[in-house]
Order: sequence, then structure tokens, then C-alpha cells
Amino acid sequence: MSKPGQLADNEVYLGTYFLDRLAQLGVKCLFGVPGDFNLTFLDLVEEHPDVKWIGNTNELNASYAADGYARVKQAQLNQDREGDQADSKPGQAKSGGGKDKTQGGVRGLGALLTTQGVGELSAVNGIAGAYAERVPVIHLVGVASTKLQKSRAVLHHTLGDGLTNVFEQAHSGITCARAFLQKAEDAASEIDRILLAALTTARPAYLTLPTDLVFIPVDKKRLETPIIPDSVAFENKDVLPTGKKVEDETKKRLEFVVKEIERLWEGAEDPIVLLDACAIRYGVGHLARDLVQATKVKFYTTPMGRTAIDEDPENGFGGVYVGEISDPEVKEVVEKSDLVIMVGSLKSDFNTGEFSYPFSQEQVIELHSDSTLVQYAHYPDVSFHMLLPALAKALKPKSNVSQPPKHVGLSTKVPEGDKDEMVTQKAFWPMMGAQLFKEGDIVVTETGTSNFGILGSALPKGTTSVSQVLWGSIGFANPATLGALLAAEESSTPRRTILFTGDGSIQLTIQEVATMVRLGLKPILVILNNNGYTIEKLIHGETASYNNIPSFDWQSMLSFFNAPAPNFKPLPTKSWLAETRGQLEDILTNDEFQKADKIQVLEVRMAPLDAPESLIKQGKLSAELNAA
Amino acid sequence: MSKPGQLADNEVYLGTYFLDRLAQLGVKCLFGVPGDFNLTFLDLVEEHPDVKWIGNTNELNASYAADGYARVKQAQLNQDREGDQADSKPGQAKSGGGKDKTQGGVRGLGALLTTQGVGELSAVNGIAGAYAERVPVIHLVGVASTKLQKSRAVLHHTLGDGLTNVFEQAHSGITCARAFLQKAEDAASEIDRILLAALTTARPAYLTLPTDLVFIPVDKKRLETPIIPDSVAFENKDVLPTGKKVEDETKKRLEFVVKEIERLWEGAEDPIVLLDACAIRYGVGHLARDLVQATKVKFYTTPMGRTAIDEDPENGFGGVYVGEISDPEVKEVVEKSDLVIMVGSLKSDFNTGEFSYPFSQEQVIELHSDSTLVQYAHYPDVSFHMLLPALAKALKPKSNVSQPPKHVGLSTKVPEGDKDEMVTQKAFWPMMGAQLFKEGDIVVTETGTSNFGILGSALPKGTTSVSQVLWGSIGFANPATLGALLAAEESSTPRRTILFTGDGSIQLTIQEVATMVRLGLKPILVILNNNGYTIEKLIHGETASYNNIPSFDWQSMLSFFNAPAPNFKPLPTKSWLAETRGQLEDILTNDEFQKADKIQVLEVRMAPLDAPESLIKQGKLSAELNAA
Repeated sequence: MSKPGQLADNEVYLGTYFLDRLAQLGVKCLFGVPGDFNLTFLDLVEEHPDVKWIGNTNELNASYAADGYARVKQAQLNQDREGDQADSKPGQAKSGGGKDKTQGGVRGLGALLTTQGVGELSAVNGIAGAYAERVPVIHLVGVASTKLQKSRAVLHHTLGDGLTNVFEQAHSGITCARAFLQKAEDAASEIDRILLAALTTARPAYLTLPTDLVFIPVDKKRLETPIIPDSVAFENKDVLPTGKKVEDETKKRLEFVVKEIERLWEGAEDPIVLLDACAIRYGVGHLARDLVQATKVKFYTTPMGRTAIDEDPENGFGGVYVGEISDPEVKEVVEKSDLVIMVGSLKSDFNTGEFSYPFSQEQVIELHSDSTLVQYAHYPDVSFHMLLPALAKALKPKSNVSQPPKHVGLSTKVPEGDKDEMVTQKAFWPMMGAQLFKEGDIVVTETGTSNFGILGSALPKGTTSVSQVLWGSIGFANPATLGALLAAEESSTPRRTILFTGDGSIQLTIQEVATMVRLGLKPILVILNNNGYTIEKLIHGETASYNNIPSFDWQSMLSFFNAPAPNFKPLPTKSWLAETRGQLEDILTNDEFQKADKIQVLEVRMAPLDAPESLIKQGKLSAELNAA
Repeated sequence: MSKPGQLADNEVYLGTYFLDRLAQLGVKCLFGVPGDFNLTFLDLVEEHPDVKWIGNTNELNASYAADGYARVKQAQLNQDREGDQADSKPGQAKSGGGKDKTQGGVRGLGALLTTQGVGELSAVNGIAGAYAERVPVIHLVGVASTKLQKSRAVLHHTLGDGLTNVFEQAHSGITCARAFLQKAEDAASEIDRILLAALTTARPAYLTLPTDLVFIPVDKKRLETPIIPDSVAFENKDVLPTGKKVEDETKKRLEFVVKEIERLWEGAEDPIVLLDACAIRYGVGHLARDLVQATKVKFYTTPMGRTAIDEDPENGFGGVYVGEISDPEVKEVVEKSDLVIMVGSLKSDFNTGEFSYPFSQEQVIELHSDSTLVQYAHYPDVSFHMLLPALAKALKPKSNVSQPPKHVGLSTKVPEGDKDEMVTQKAFWPMMGAQLFKEGDIVVTETGTSNFGILGSALPKGTTSVSQVLWGSIGFANPATLGALLAAEESSTPRRTILFTGDGSIQLTIQEVATMVRLGLKPILVILNNNGYTIEKLIHGETASYNNIPSFDWQSMLSFFNAPAPNFKPLPTKSWLAETRGQLEDILTNDEFQKADKIQVLEVRMAPLDAPESLIKQGKLSAELNAA
């Protein structure tokens, strides 16, 4: 690797420049796996004061972890914003955002380091997931020196024909921007371009760093110009940080759209707000909250929009709406509405009950990050960053709007059951809301049973929900939990991190539990042990052997990952097993368990074909659509 | 999913057609992970008489396993060919190749099934490895119905913008051919095109199968035309199976090249043959063997060429040659040669001692699958399939060629040592050759310590060596062992499968051990436990914390993956621990261990910075090249 050169006082190494930029943007953890083309850069990480290296057990896991980290950081910054608006709300998690508090927008960034070819390609699925779900993750790849690249040497970690653009190409449809650094002159500006693109679009970006550019000098002065997307600045200002003035035409267009919406609003008797994924990702939860509070209407969330703002019935939360697969009482009240303001909607199959919204387009207003849709009219360049505050001022409060069912958020729906009976999905999820969750928790749910089950759990104030409903890659949740745990450590108040996964899903990425153990993190890992891929069985192949999986001894997992070694002293762990409802209740009410002061496994045995009602409905809808 | 339609007697479903084609080509195992877009196809797999479903624990592992399976199948077919030439050699592993025995060429094929987006992208690194290392693996992806594709529905497992060609694009530089099936008319011919391309180029290919095409009818008659690459047919015939006559021009060109080589051969005093990767991959080991036997010269192998033919010193084997990092005595004798016939060479950094061959181009003849190089002259379209048999006839035997060192293959170099000392790398690898390996073993080694260490182990007749020297993706070896185990089950004689990996590498893909347990397979898993990434430490960051890893309790791994379950009864397992040389010797000589009648772990504790001599040399050469 190229050796560090002399630096003048006003210079930093390019490698350090990249890390300083990450630190400015609130990134304190760099996920990844070492490889011979990124080792000297890792020396710079080791000595960096703000960015910490998190070595993962493989690259796919690292990409998932970076994604989970970014999501929770974004949520914590959103919550800080909420805190700003409504002072001293109890139980609200505060992160040490510092000056970040003055800005909304996309601020939760994740970062991932891999090595050429073998490393970067292993992460591709995780990057694609971040792209689909709008999570900005920077994928930095350590590659061979520009000189070796030019020689087209048959290096290991290549396809044998020199280092071509094949690996960059594999990232082309799943990142918003790519830079293949080749020369000193534009390396720093390319880094800035990549970071700005990721924050602007809330999507991952790709960057290669050749070994001979790690130690080139960069003028420190560049760091004084912050990287802020225009959309953030739009929120309240007339002049953007780039110096660009917000044009009169833009303001006139905005006023026009506000008037159009005002007209519909005044004619509506029972309007609601429906919060979705992009409200979280683009950091406008606090603006949506202002709108709800100003207009006194009820708000609902989609599965992907959960915890965009506190799910507090006292402040207008009405429940989770998923079309056909909604709780019937929630469905009824939502579908009575005559005007639905959708904020940041992402209408994927699993997020909409297989496209089963019954609203006519004339009842719908959609607020997006880059455009607005009012009935049939499309307004490009009118983003929710500017529109939400304007609407909060313009729209008059409504009284007498429909009231959602009382059980939402109150966990009164835990079904009766015998202490000795096997735990059912029907009982399990309400029990989580009633007996496990508390304010400030981070709840990570896996694709499959857990993502559907959690729809039946109340989430207290300050909760952050993490799930991958659109991309739906099984195995995501466990490494995402690692990322969430590390993000939670950056919160100013302690937060518990709770994973819900199944034995079918966690097997894909199980080794990342070892990283949690190594780092002394303290998640509660709830494993629904039901012997196989339940969600697949419900879609097709109920008893087919291809939906079977190996049989893991969940009670011994933590000890397998916790052996003494020259550089490691085993840490306290605890594994719990619930085979009956009574056992589960005992664990949930156990102080040691609730305290979450060590890493814990809670294995819950369930019947293989037992599933949440919503998943059963979804499975049928999916099978029908596939057969159509 | 679309329902099965009525079939006429002369028809099969398209899904079955694909499986029948695989079966014809000797593929009896389909690796992969179920997903909702491949479930109905899996129904056809379940009922197929010849192709068995191997559910893996994740898709990357599945791709590695398919690769390992293909390599061992190819080796077994090569060995059958050797058996044909030299009858009844003891200890030669025979696979039930049947009529395959009449053909060389690329015949070891692997196959992998994933689901759209999330599944296929997880496998990309494994597919790229197969591409780099010339292993034909068919990647079949179950995707949404053509109707859903056209509707651009926001389905789960998409990027949210409909099913675009992004995932195919991610495969474009790492597969030799791709087919995105869209209509019934050409689906079967597209399948044939893909399979032929993979066999012709010895590289992976990509194919999508929409749910609504699984059950379309295909005329059975198509199956009567076998899929055989031209290169195989070239070997001995004047007319290709396609009906194409081998042209006179081709024969004249071949004769010209043979004469050129003959001229050089006659002037050479001390020629050698150097066997490399592509001799194995393109199935010409038996032809190279005929050449060596006919000419009486010595042959050597590169790391990637190991076990292309039996490494039997009595039949001319002289040792493993890796340029600068070779055994000094082997290096000396190889570099004395005045004419080197390289068969299937793949001159990557780790395969050549960092490009340290000292031969001048005037001393070199290179025989490839698609061309020949004689000194500076390049002859396209002269493949080793036709050239090797011609040379075996034309070249006159040499007497008095240089003799390689006596220790090669005889394992007399096991260094002396005290029973109570820690096991050293220096002692370990010769001990494996002397005390563990026996005829017919499959030896899988991981990138890093093991790939270099194995250079110091003698491999008995009939051994198959599996490693990934060019692509070098850590984590490959463990799932590849699963593939090897399943391929070995198709051999007509029992074969043991032995994995050598490190604690740093196996963590990436550790869950695949669970599949071995589930299927009742019986590998010997040798884990070199040295607390971290030794190969990285030797390249850079000897004591840096980024080269540390979690600490696993290897003695409890098998029990973690072997829990009782409703559909699984735990199987016998055995875990061994060697902390000293004496303990290791006791285990190696223990009958229970040697018998390999259950899955076994052998954990060997080693010092973190102890490494094979060849790896130490390679580490220095790599660091120098990176710094240049």
C-alpha cells in the first residue's frame, strides 16, 4: 500500500477527509470486513477520533447493519426535531445530534467498507435493499492501486482480466451515484458529490478508493463547506446554503398547490393523514406532526410508516392501515374518510394489503419528497419539505372527525388463554405491546411472520420500528439489529433494542450475533422457533420439504459465540425458553429480562403453521396474484 | 403461481424440461433457497426422479456449494477418463458417469435456484467466483409472472419501480450468457443456449423463470438432441455432433502448430509440463496425462492445477511450482528447464508467486481451451482438446530429464518436534500428507493460510483438491465442502471430504455446517483456530484490532446445529481439539477419526502469527506490489 506522505498543516489525507465528512454527517460507525485492498485505509480509521470501526462477520451482514444504523440514526434525529417542537415530552429518546437539531431532512447516514470484488459483491443485496427502501448507505470499496489497475494484472479478487468496471456495473441500478476514484485532482470533490447525492435522494451510493490514493493530501478548507441537500434548506429559508435564492416561481407554485389542497380540505368532512415510509426517510416526521396537531385530524400509518411520529392515541394516532389486511375496526374507520393526505407513501404489495386501497383518486392527496399529487394533478418540484409547513398554517382545524377504535395503542386486545397452552401468534403480538415494550425501545422485525405480527402490537411513545417491508430480504433483521444497537448507543437516553425473527430467517445471517457478543452489546433477540419458513408455507408448499430448515439449539447459541480467547473474556449472557403462554408471561414480567443489561435470547416455540391473521390474509392474496 | 396445465404424452412442463436437461448433464443436486417466486417450480423438483433439492442456509452459500459440487463432479469425470486410458489403477475414484465416460470436456456442472432480487443478488459474489475460476454454474432465478412484470407492480423483492433489468445487469459481467425468459415460444431453446454456453466456456450462466412459464408444455423431442460443446467433439472426431464437419483448414492449422512445437521439443534438453487450472476445468487432464506418459518428461502443477492428474512421483509428478514461493528444491529443478509446456495456465498473482516466473517467452508453449501460444506466436482456434492428443503422438520421449526432489509426494519432510509443543504450520501441513490423507480424498482448502499451507502437503492418488486461488473469497471453502460432499456421494467408491479453514474465514459462511448436519453428511472440518485474519495480518496490520474477530467455541458448534426437532433426530457428531503436536498426532492416528463415519470437527490451536513459509513470502510480495 502506498506510504503516508508528509502533510502540511492545512492538509489531511484523502482517507481522513472521507472520514471527517462522515463524522460531520453524524456517522460514528463504519461497518465492513477488512481485506487486503482496504487495510491502510483502516489504519486511518483506527486513529480517527470520531469514526469507529465495526468489523462484521461478512459483507452482506455489514451492509444490513449499516442500513439498520442509518434508519435508527434518522429516527433519533427526527425525534429530536419533535422534541424541539413540543418541549420536554417524557420518554422521548434524544440523540446527541448537536447542531443537527436545527435541520430536518435526510440525516441518518450509514457507511460500509469492503474490499474489491469478493467483498463488494457480497454486499450487493444489502445495498439494493437500502436503495429500494430509501436508506442512504455509502459503500466504500478499497481497490488495487491505479497503477495496478492500469497494468490489468491478474490479481486475486479480480475476474482474471484486470480490474474492469464490472463491479461498479453491478452497483449501477442499485445506487444513486457512483465514483470510481482515479486521480488526486478530483478525488475530494467526487467524495462530496457522492455524499450529497445519497443525502438528497435517501439512497445508497458507491465509491472506490485505490490504495495509492488513501494518503494523498487534501486541503482542509474544503471541510468548511457543509454537505446539505437543497431539500433540507427549502424547509424554512429563502436562500439555500449553496447561495442559490429560492425563486419566486417556486414560491408561487407552492402557494397554488396550497390553495388547491385548502379547497379540497374545506369540502372534506372526515379527512385523515396517512404516514408512510418516506416521511421517515426524508426526515419530515416532525412536519407531519405539526400538521396533525394544527388540524386536529387523526393520523394512521402504513407498516413502513410506523413510528414516523409517536403512535400516541392522545395525539391523534388511529392505528396501522394496510388495506384488506388491516385490523377490521381500523379498516372501517379509515375507509370512511373522504380525504386522505398521504405523506411519503410507498405503495408496495405488502405495505398496502396487496394493493387493496379502496380510495378513488379524487379523495387522495400525495405528498412526496420531490413532487405532490392532488387528485389527478401532478406537481413536480413541490416537495413535502416546503408543503407540510405551509399546510400546517393554511388548513383550518377539523372537529368531529371519526374516532378510531379504542384498543389502538392500549393493548386491551390480548386474547384470553390458558397458562399451559402453546403460545399462539394471536396472543403473542398483543402481549409484546402490553408486557414487553416500553418508551424509547427500538423494535426490529424480520420479513415474514414478525413483520406481519408486529402490526398487532402497540408501540409506546419514542419507539423506533425497523423493518424491510418492500425489499423483504430474509436475514436482514439480525444484522440490522447490530446497526440499531450501535445507533442507540449514540442516543442521549438509554434505549433497548429488541429483535423479532424466525428460525428460518436468522439462519441466513446468524453469525452477526457473534459481533454483538464481541462488542458487549445487549439486545433482546426474540426467536420464533416454528421449524421452517412459515411465510413461504402459507404462500405455497404447506408441507413440502423444501420449506424445512436445519434445527438449531437456540439455547446454546450465545455460548457458541462467547468462547474465551487471548483477546476476549466471555461476557454475561442469558437464554430463555418459552414453550407455553405461562412461561412467556413469567419471562416478560421478569425484572432481569426487562432490564436488558446483557445480551439475551428469548426462544418462543410456536406451531409451524400458526401465523398472524394479517399474514394468512397476505399469503392468500400473494398466491392469488401469482396465479393470475 | 400458474397452475399446471394438461400435458400431451409427448410433452413436459418447461420446469421439468430444465430439470431433465440438468439430469442429462449429470446434475443431481440443485442448490438454493426457496422464495415465493420459485415455489411452484420447487414442486417439480420435489417430484423429479433424478434432481434432488438441497436447501441451503443462504444464497451466497448455495452458490459456493454449487461451485464446489461442479468442481468435484468435473474431477470425478476426469478421473474416470484417466481410468479408461490406464485400466484398473488401484485407489482411483470412479464416479457413476455412465456414458459420460466417452467424453472429456467440461462436464461438471453446478446449478443454483434463487428468488428474484433478494435471493439472486445475495449469490452474485459466488457467481463471480465461478466466472473467475471457470466453473460452469447455472443460476436459475424464479421471478414474478410476465404479466406482473409488465404491470410494473411495486412488488416485494423489487426496487419499487417494477421488475427491471437491474438484477440481470448485475450478472452481466460475471456470466457467459443470460436469458430473461418472457415467452413460451423460445423458452426451451433459450434454456439450451444457456446450458451450451456454460459448458463451452466453463463459466456460469443466468436464467430467469417467471411463475407463469413454469408449467407451459414443451415437446419432449427436444431432449433427444444432447447438449455438447464443439470442443469436446473436436477431440477425436471429424464430424461434430451438430453435424458440422471439421474443416480441412482447421486440420492443416493444427498440423502446422504440432510441427512448430515438435521443432522446439527436439531442440530442448530438459522440457517439462506445467499443469494449471484450465486443464482441470476444460476436462483435458487425461489428455495431458497421455502426453506426459508418452514423452516421459516430468510434470509439475501450479496451486490451481493441483490434482489435474494424480500427483504420483512414479508417474512423473515433480511437485508444485509457484515461482518465488515454491519449495526451494522444486523451484531449482523447474527453473533449470529449457522448455515449459503450460497446459491451461491461469497466471494470477497467488498462482504464480506474485508473477515471479523467470521463463523467457522463447522457452514457453501455452496450451489453452481456445488458442495456443508458441513462444511469441499466437494461434487462435487451436485448442488443447485437439492439440494434446496430436502432441502425444508426435513428440518423441525424452530421457535424462532433470529429477525432482525425492521428498515430493513422500511426506518425508515432516519436521521433528516435541509432543508438548504447540502445533506449528511448518509441521502441520506435511503431517496432513503423511498421516491424514488417503487415496480418493477430497481436500478443500480456504483462501488464506490453508491455500498456502496445502502446498506443503503430499496428495495421494485419486485426491481431488478444491480451492479458490484467483477469486480468493474467504468463506468459500465451507459451503464448497457441502457441494463436494454431495458430489462425492455420486462417486462409485466412497470418498472422504476434508475441509481446512480458519476461524477468520469460516465465520462468513458458518451456517452451512447446519446443512451438512441436516443432510447427515460426514465431512472432517479442520478449523485452524488462530484468533483472527492471519493472512491479512501478514499483508498489513499485524496487531491492528481490525484484524480481530469474534471468539467461537468450536467444540460446541456441531451441537448448536444438531438440536432435536419434530422433523429431525440429532445425528452422531464428534469434535476434537488439538492444542499440542502430540494431541494432533493421537487424533490423526485414531481409527474413529480416520473412519469419517460421522460429521467431525478438528480444532487445532495455533499461534496467531504463525503461518506457512509460502504465505509469509506471499504476504511480503503482496505488500510490496500494493506499495509500488
